[in-house]
Amino acid sequence: MALQNFIDQCLPAIESELQQVVKTAREPHYQGLHEMTTYHMGWEGEGAGPKARGKRVRPLLVLLSTASAGGEWVNALPAAAAVELVHNFSLIHDDIEDNSPLRRGRPTVWKIWGLAQAINAGDTMFTLAHLAVMGLKKTTSPIIALQATHLLQQTCLHLTQGQYLDIAYEEKTDLAIEDYWPMVAGKTGALLAACTELGALVADVDNETRNFYRNFGRDLGLAFQALDDYLGIWGNTDLTGKSVASDLVEGKKTLPVLYGLEKNGAFAKRWRQGPVTQGEVPEIAKQLEAEGGRAFTQDEAERLTSSALQSLEDADPQGDAGQALAELANQLLKRDV
Amino acid sequence: MALQNFIDQCLPAIESELQQVVKTAREPHYQGLHEMTTYHMGWEGEGAGPKARGKRVRPLLVLLSTASAGGEWVNALPAAAAVELVHNFSLIHDDIEDNSPLRRGRPTVWKIWGLAQAINAGDTMFTLAHLAVMGLKKTTSPIIALQATHLLQQTCLHLTQGQYLDIAYEEKTDLAIEDYWPMVAGKTGALLAACTELGALVADVDNETRNFYRNFGRDLGLAFQALDDYLGIWGNTDLTGKSVASDLVEGKKTLPVLYGLEKNGAFAKRWRQGPVTQGEVPEIAKQLEAEGGRAFTQDEAERLTSSALQSLEDADPQGDAGQALAELANQLLKRDV
Repeated sequence: MALQNFIDQCLPAIESELQQVVKTAREPHYQGLHEMTTYHMGWEGEGAGPKARGKRVRPLLVLLSTASAGGEWVNALPAAAAVELVHNFSLIHDDIEDNSPLRRGRPTVWKIWGLAQAINAGDTMFTLAHLAVMGLKKTTSPIIALQATHLLQQTCLHLTQGQYLDIAYEEKTDLAIEDYWPMVAGKTGALLAACTELGALVADVDNETRNFYRNFGRDLGLAFQALDDYLGIWGNTDLTGKSVASDLVEGKKTLPVLYGLEKNGAFAKRWRQGPVTQGEVPEIAKQLEAEGGRAFTQDEAERLTSSALQSLEDADPQGDAGQALAELANQLLKRDV
Repeated sequence: MALQNFIDQCLPAIESELQQVVKTAREPHYQGLHEMTTYHMGWEGEGAGPKARGKRVRPLLVLLSTASAGGEWVNALPAAAAVELVHNFSLIHDDIEDNSPLRRGRPTVWKIWGLAQAINAGDTMFTLAHLAVMGLKKTTSPIIALQATHLLQQTCLHLTQGQYLDIAYEEKTDLAIEDYWPMVAGKTGALLAACTELGALVADVDNETRNFYRNFGRDLGLAFQALDDYLGIWGNTDLTGKSVASDLVEGKKTLPVLYGLEKNGAFAKRWRQGPVTQGEVPEIAKQLEAEGGRAFTQDEAERLTSSALQSLEDADPQGDAGQALAELANQLLKRDV
């Protein structure tokens, strides 16, 4: 309830901030480049609309963190826009790197404009993200703006390092569980940690509280990913919107799969023989469960969920925003409360 | 003479600053990513060495601008490293976008590590550039560091806009001279303008002087490009290191070519019929000259050279560094003085 109130207030402000940043690059000469950006953001072109925009979870996390840490969420809008632009820059490049033809139900940027322009459009969005965060100069102080800029850049480095591992792992067959966390920490944890930390930074809290916010975001990201990996094999289709066990067919190196490879039993033997077909899925999922992969993944997801919620409690989020932040976390972690 | 003294002092300092920045991303997990970066920078791998590094003209421009504007060049090292990293990030992505197999005589990053990792390695270097400039916090003040960061980000935006036009022009046949300048201003002028302006910013000069430095860098870039375009058709092979008129065979949309297309005479007619062979080059170059393309390009290069040197004079660069800066400009503009 508190969350919905915030969403109703914040989402239009987020879209407006994002559009203002993207508009700075709009000049007649570069109209075509601007079109790629506004298409990817879900504002223009075929299929534009809320569905094409995604849920804007990251900017919401920023604003709710600021408000629950005692700041004014409007002051955090430049940081909120920045994290969403970083997220979308990485999606444009990921789609090229993964050869993905579709994103949120629409053709990807590279599918429409080609490889060269898509790489460049991603670079433009990356730059816009960095320009966006500079807006904090006006809403906070130069010192906070500089700290936020630094934090965002370190996050981007971590993000590209995670992406490096993700690509490198595609060809590896001898992976173990310890290879999982650095990849997920970069690909998912880093940006979510930045969201909650940036929010706390704008509220100008003490270092201890800022750490609690950061850890909350990071573990939220890790828990979310572990849960997503669990549901990708043993989930309910209605709940996830993906066909059950599609992760096995796609050959994804998820947490349960790495568990199975480390066990080096019947599952690992079958996995190393090559692509899994849809027909084999129930049996292979059962085998992985028998080897302990299901329980292990569930335990890890629960451990990280507890850790995230503990950090949130330690951060002592205040008021309606604090309640909304807890609601959002529980929603992402698919917990009924 | 003054220039060589500065090169001997500054180049080792630039390499050391660059290596320090790149090293921040060196962790055992991401060793492979680190290898791509150090390979591209010319430090590691087959063919590593001074030739593979390029001339580091951009960081030199930063340091000489700081020193000739009355500052200490060592304080500008973070900015010098940043512009060189931005330049190299754009080369990694340009090589993918242009499908180029070689860079400075060595296989390009994408040729060795593949498309996906090369895009990501470029993103890493882009981020490192932004992290590098933050080093100014220690050598100058938070305010100057913030201004420099902002300036660098706006430069990157301009750079990607220029790259957008460059790619977009490949398919266009109806280009005119007015289409040339926005592309070159983004691709070449923006980063050189940033070099000299960042240098002046670190020296903390007044706004007027800072503008003179910026305009010097920008026009230096534009003049350099116009001259390069001229030499690409009517140049001497010994001087340029490229085969004469290779620009015509490669179908580059250079300044003289756009002049010819705008004239819409015999040159334009032939150009629009498709690729030019090496055998046709002398005749086509002669035709373009007869239509006024050679004189026009020479005039433009001279106009911009004068403008650059006038801005440098207005900036009133001091001491040995001022002399070295003028030497470097004259060297880039291939003027014997």
